[in-house]
Amino acid sequence: MSSSYKLFSDPIHGFISVPRKLLLPLVKSPEVQRLRRLRQLGVGNLVFPSAEHSRFGHALGSLALMQDALRTLKESGTPISDDEFEASLAAALLHDIGHGPFSHTLEFQLFRAVPHECLTRRLIQRMNERFDGALNLTLEIFDDTYQRPFFGNLLASQLDVDRLDYLRRDSHFTGVIEGSIGVERVIRTMRVYPREGGAGSRIVIEAKGIYAAENVLVARRHMYWQVYVHKTVLAGDHVLVAALCRARSHLKDGNNEAIRNISPTLAPFLEKSYDKSALNDSNVLDAFLELDDTDVMASLKCWMHSTDPILADLSRRFIERDLFRCVFLPESPDPDTIRAWKQRVADTLVQMGLSNREQSVADADYYIFVDRSSHSAYHRKEGPIHTLEADGTVSEVLARKDSRALDALTHYVEKPYVCFPKAADLGI
Amino acid sequence: MSSSYKLFSDPIHGFISVPRKLLLPLVKSPEVQRLRRLRQLGVGNLVFPSAEHSRFGHALGSLALMQDALRTLKESGTPISDDEFEASLAAALLHDIGHGPFSHTLEFQLFRAVPHECLTRRLIQRMNERFDGALNLTLEIFDDTYQRPFFGNLLASQLDVDRLDYLRRDSHFTGVIEGSIGVERVIRTMRVYPREGGAGSRIVIEAKGIYAAENVLVARRHMYWQVYVHKTVLAGDHVLVAALCRARSHLKDGNNEAIRNISPTLAPFLEKSYDKSALNDSNVLDAFLELDDTDVMASLKCWMHSTDPILADLSRRFIERDLFRCVFLPESPDPDTIRAWKQRVADTLVQMGLSNREQSVADADYYIFVDRSSHSAYHRKEGPIHTLEADGTVSEVLARKDSRALDALTHYVEKPYVCFPKAADLGI
Amino acid sequence: MSSSYKLFSDPIHGFISVPRKLLLPLVKSPEVQRLRRLRQLGVGNLVFPSAEHSRFGHALGSLALMQDALRTLKESGTPISDDEFEASLAAALLHDIGHGPFSHTLEFQLFRAVPHECLTRRLIQRMNERFDGALNLTLEIFDDTYQRPFFGNLLASQLDVDRLDYLRRDSHFTGVIEGSIGVERVIRTMRVYPREGGAGSRIVIEAKGIYAAENVLVARRHMYWQVYVHKTVLAGDHVLVAALCRARSHLKDGNNEAIRNISPTLAPFLEKSYDKSALNDSNVLDAFLELDDTDVMASLKCWMHSTDPILADLSRRFIERDLFRCVFLPESPDPDTIRAWKQRVADTLVQMGLSNREQSVADADYYIFVDRSSHSAYHRKEGPIHTLEADGTVSEVLARKDSRALDALTHYVEKPYVCFPKAADLGI
Amino acid sequence: MSSSYKLFSDPIHGFISVPRKLLLPLVKSPEVQRLRRLRQLGVGNLVFPSAEHSRFGHALGSLALMQDALRTLKESGTPISDDEFEASLAAALLHDIGHGPFSHTLEFQLFRAVPHECLTRRLIQRMNERFDGALNLTLEIFDDTYQRPFFGNLLASQLDVDRLDYLRRDSHFTGVIEGSIGVERVIRTMRVYPREGGAGSRIVIEAKGIYAAENVLVARRHMYWQVYVHKTVLAGDHVLVAALCRARSHLKDGNNEAIRNISPTLAPFLEKSYDKSALNDSNVLDAFLELDDTDVMASLKCWMHSTDPILADLSRRFIERDLFRCVFLPESPDPDTIRAWKQRVADTLVQMGLSNREQSVADADYYIFVDRSSHSAYHRKEGPIHTLEADGTVSEVLARKDSRALDALTHYVEKPYVCFPKAADLGI
Repeated sequence: MSSSYKLFSDPIHGFISVPRKLLLPLVKSPEVQRLRRLRQLGVGNLVFPSAEHSRFGHALGSLALMQDALRTLKESGTPISDDEFEASLAAALLHDIGHGPFSHTLEFQLFRAVPHECLTRRLIQRMNERFDGALNLTLEIFDDTYQRPFFGNLLASQLDVDRLDYLRRDSHFTGVIEGSIGVERVIRTMRVYPREGGAGSRIVIEAKGIYAAENVLVARRHMYWQVYVHKTVLAGDHVLVAALCRARSHLKDGNNEAIRNISPTLAPFLEKSYDKSALNDSNVLDAFLELDDTDVMASLKCWMHSTDPILADLSRRFIERDLFRCVFLPESPDPDTIRAWKQRVADTLVQMGLSNREQSVADADYYIFVDRSSHSAYHRKEGPIHTLEADGTVSEVLARKDSRALDALTHYVEKPYVCFPKAADLGI
Repeated sequence: MSSSYKLFSDPIHGFISVPRKLLLPLVKSPEVQRLRRLRQLGVGNLVFPSAEHSRFGHALGSLALMQDALRTLKESGTPISDDEFEASLAAALLHDIGHGPFSHTLEFQLFRAVPHECLTRRLIQRMNERFDGALNLTLEIFDDTYQRPFFGNLLASQLDVDRLDYLRRDSHFTGVIEGSIGVERVIRTMRVYPREGGAGSRIVIEAKGIYAAENVLVARRHMYWQVYVHKTVLAGDHVLVAALCRARSHLKDGNNEAIRNISPTLAPFLEKSYDKSALNDSNVLDAFLELDDTDVMASLKCWMHSTDPILADLSRRFIERDLFRCVFLPESPDPDTIRAWKQRVADTLVQMGLSNREQSVADADYYIFVDRSSHSAYHRKEGPIHTLEADGTVSEVLARKDSRALDALTHYVEKPYVCFPKAADLGI
Repeated sequence: MSSSYKLFSDPIHGFISVPRKLLLPLVKSPEVQRLRRLRQLGVGNLVFPSAEHSRFGHALGSLALMQDALRTLKESGTPISDDEFEASLAAALLHDIGHGPFSHTLEFQLFRAVPHECLTRRLIQRMNERFDGALNLTLEIFDDTYQRPFFGNLLASQLDVDRLDYLRRDSHFTGVIEGSIGVERVIRTMRVYPREGGAGSRIVIEAKGIYAAENVLVARRHMYWQVYVHKTVLAGDHVLVAALCRARSHLKDGNNEAIRNISPTLAPFLEKSYDKSALNDSNVLDAFLELDDTDVMASLKCWMHSTDPILADLSRRFIERDLFRCVFLPESPDPDTIRAWKQRVADTLVQMGLSNREQSVADADYYIFVDRSSHSAYHRKEGPIHTLEADGTVSEVLARKDSRALDALTHYVEKPYVCFPKAADLGI
Repeated sequence: MSSSYKLFSDPIHGFISVPRKLLLPLVKSPEVQRLRRLRQLGVGNLVFPSAEHSRFGHALGSLALMQDALRTLKESGTPISDDEFEASLAAALLHDIGHGPFSHTLEFQLFRAVPHECLTRRLIQRMNERFDGALNLTLEIFDDTYQRPFFGNLLASQLDVDRLDYLRRDSHFTGVIEGSIGVERVIRTMRVYPREGGAGSRIVIEAKGIYAAENVLVARRHMYWQVYVHKTVLAGDHVLVAALCRARSHLKDGNNEAIRNISPTLAPFLEKSYDKSALNDSNVLDAFLELDDTDVMASLKCWMHSTDPILADLSRRFIERDLFRCVFLPESPDPDTIRAWKQRVADTLVQMGLSNREQSVADADYYIFVDRSSHSAYHRKEGPIHTLEADGTVSEVLARKDSRALDALTHYVEKPYVCFPKAADLGI
């Protein structure tokens, strides 16, 4: 009398039912289980104490939303085969398996110039071999080469199941309820146009769902500025990157004493400069699959006792949450200002006994960061959002009346900022 | 060991604690108890089945938010006396007691050209006499003549406790979660500027609360179009107004047979054309305080058996929810179009046996309505929203960087529409 | 491209999808629309301000849960035909249409000795004629005569969709979260035993759902004592019943002056003593279908001006929420005590000018009520709850190990109480 | 204009305000920051994917509830000084700092016979020295030696802030809503008896809060069986303990090759058998403060490549969530059965190539566990719950009428179980 589904309990979606056939073995694979050890928000929990949720929950949530979306589409008359159903769910489940520890923070630190999507694709390919081609269609949907392109829209577009889940999930766990969104309404108003869903078909939103869709874009903008690039999150990012860069330099110099007890899993990713070519090396992929947040944390904790006072200080700062100060600036500072700031920081390092006169300017590179955050909530280039009007026609949302609010969301906003130790007085 | 507060249980705010001294007697007054019999959303429950919440819950909710806001302001260093505290709570509790049945729908039907604020003011004044002047300060705050104007801001401005409660409450009970707003965050970031709160002081929002505030404006816009002027809500409004106008015409003609069993409470308000001068007539005010949604409903149910087929039809339509069709139009129709439509409706009335050739065009006035809805989410004129920057300066939100999204919300949107019986084919 | 479902937005279940074929016309019927004008909790909103939800929302909610339950059962291998699916949904939607105004409070006041289930059955039967027999199967399920009895269990048993919805709904709207229950878990663990669902089949709960099921029983007990028989709710019930009884006595005496402006819909139900035989009178049924909470409220408001001071006082008490005092007693009072109390109340009526020496003892019958509330959370007689063990066997929950907590819930608890005017000092 | 509070955003309590004076420095201390790296539910997230919440969130939540409770008590007339207020908040914040990685699972593995409360006390004492005695009163409350004992009740009793927070928090993050409890109602009905709160005073619950309090006990029982000793949680516990025991045996044997790359922080706790005396060794305490979940996880990941196939297998099982099977038994198995089962497991280990004939029975000790879970929801010995009746008297809850349900909760339930590899067929 056992069911053909396994239920997972989730504070966001209630019960998530995972079909036992292909999907449950995928959930049980080491690739997906590893997502349990990657926090969804990287260092976000340093600002929002309960934002400790993992990428595993998000993977299941994306699967759940894909299920809801496909049911809505079927029910509104678009034929979807069992194989397509299963392959789409697999794509939603696996869409983030290429993320490494502290995801976006360390994304290009571990593989030079390799975005996580490339790693994801490569890892799905490997799983596909293990699963005897059961993921062929999943790969087509992931690559957006499938002949019925609306499946690709569900996986990657401005209103895809990935975003719908993470906005709602991150909003919930951070408690930033400005990011809460009408996920159910968006999904219930999804349609395929043309309805049969052949070549050239896309996901559109019924006109009555337009406010829910707009709300997703607004929520994304609010989450971006209030959570994803919160100034303390940026400060945490930079402390973490600085510590790893410092460790990397010791590794390259063969200065093993300073980085004693580095996690053996993490070591090769700092020592070697893996790039795209490494994706063909099965050993590198195996190593990557063993790497997660705990290796970084365990290494930082060891480095708190490093013989290098700078590495020890940076590690301690991260572990004890004694982060940099981060200040948003009205405009990007000019090179002279930056130079003066860096000198100030260098002086501070000397005063703090972390560096000496000769080294201090070079060492300051680990202690001051001038950068900028930028965001536009609605990216026309990522594929515009279309609505299905009551008369059966389709139009881009920006072409509609009352699109002023949406239009504003296409606006690109850029905020320069600087991070530095609180002890350094930069006069800002 | 009894507490100096009485607790009310509320799905929105948890427990609401009402101080026993002045406030609890006010809650128990007939003026406030009557709010239990006024639905907050008028006919909104015809579209959103659970939106049956009353103005009484909203009055308590406004009081609760006023309490939270005052505590935040005190805690951030603005002195607030016990009298001011109590008077502000009373103002929040009483701010809507002048509403009549089906509030906005019938607002100017019962008192010609008298907005509900005038009635509210008059009724508070009468209560003040009964309470021996205990509401003097409440009246000053309500009139916005109090020497510390920030109290007036809390009661009536773009981020007042009234809006913060009703947006969240209406969003909850309708299930339109696009209207959910970060009430707690907005309130926690409120400050008085200048801090002492003297003459010229106003409520400002700390810069970090700006997204929550923007979210309130967006939520208001979404609730407006998705709930408050939902096309079926408009259709319900017009059926209700038509039935009452029809009854009124019978009353004026002395055609008592047609309106048999009209609620004796409702009758005078249809029969006489009360205007501002009636506010001085204590009997009229007493009568008004006995009037609520149930009188209208009970009358409509009786009129379903009226000898006038039109009144019977309109009443039945409302009771059985067989409402008009409502169509939003790309632009306002010209007089010729309207005339042609009205003829179409008149013909339909004849076909349905509700009217005859001679009367049908006149009768059609009860069956076709051309009107427009309009809205702008951010009304600078209603008092702009100001933010308190990290450096202690204050600026209007629109003057800030990244104000593009807010700027769009100042945009005034107008949507013409027409309501008519489904049986009439207007070709739209 | 329109969907075969219509969506209703609900704070409890999110979106409820109602199939357009048979179900939507049923929702639109006057019988179901009338439920909008019956509050689910009768006078409960006098204690819990937001508990203004109607029986209409509960009817839709029951339908939604029936849908979820049937899907779970189908998915776990029990065949369910489209006709059975539709008929079960209709049964859930219609299961309460026989309720009158202020449901349980007035249940036997309007029809002598006719429980609401009889009225419901009769009304479904009439609808069935109008719908040309489309409700034949619905009636069989309602009567529990259908050959596959598990459908009857879903509609009426200790874990039926009615209870699961109302416990969760009432808990939500009252804010008494002790009544919140794991509805989804209970439904997801429902199975049919034996699985094919033939004669003798019943709904059982998978063993892992036992805590959720127990929680439903505990929640029911808590809701019973904290909400359904809250002492102020009992006080409200008795004031309302007293007013109607007083009006009824005037009606019978032909004392029309005292009850001027009684709702014409309500009048016959007070005047005549309808009993079971009236269910065959189509006019009575038509009249009943026009009767709802608003008729009672409108009548009470008129009676506040009655020439009978007692009727005026009782009506005012209800409208202005100046209710009786209600005291739970350690044990049932003896006749002497009751007689003494009644004399005290009679004296009070005289002092208050509501009665005179001669009448006061008779009149006191409207002002003092000695009664008892009783409850047991788990009624074995109503059909015991069975669990499906991991080994495929079925056992009654009380026969399991660790059933002590459940066993306690079978315990029958009785609480005597007395209601009387606050002004009367009974020394308790 | 800065506030004297710092706000933390929390999905359970909304905003938590932490006073800046003493409390904020405590929050920032390494002792409290370390709680971010301890999962509240140990291995619970292996069953409930979103249950990744840390002890840090729980510490803040306990502080928040302590604040609410103290405000309620003050408001009901019990005097509480500012120092007492602050000390109680500190006690709530710090009450769990003595927990180690995977709390209860490893509690007695790292310190022999030292419960976490002892460690907590010792660590608070050390902090007190650093904070120049600012925690003197906190220690008194923690030790329950303070002259006003009701503070101790709030911190440790059957309805303390610890339980109220963790039940609600765990219920939320696991999605097991049967564990949701009316925290706010319990806290709002707390009173001190006698009201002045002197010697002999205790926390009591107003009679009207009795259902909320009972609900806490029921919720605790449900969470216990559905979450805390869920069979897969038990399986995870035993795999983890087995892996650490195996590593410990290699450490003791000096077999360093097998446990290469053990976290240097974890090593001494496995190598040495610390007991109570170690609490006086400042170095041991420093080492303990560096130890958290990440050290265990990082070590397990390294040991997946151990030269010892058993350590490698156990580690892999935990990391890839390939856990044991866990079966609850009707009664405790007799020694012969256990011996037979162990032989079966030993044979399986040989078949799987993990052991050889000679070693297999000894090795089986790492693969089969016979144990029992036990629980009673209401522990009279832990200090009974008292209610404050309407007449001002106090009684133990079990002495009240209708205590049958509570009485059942005092019942002690014991469930024997066995854990073993799925590959071993024990015939159960």
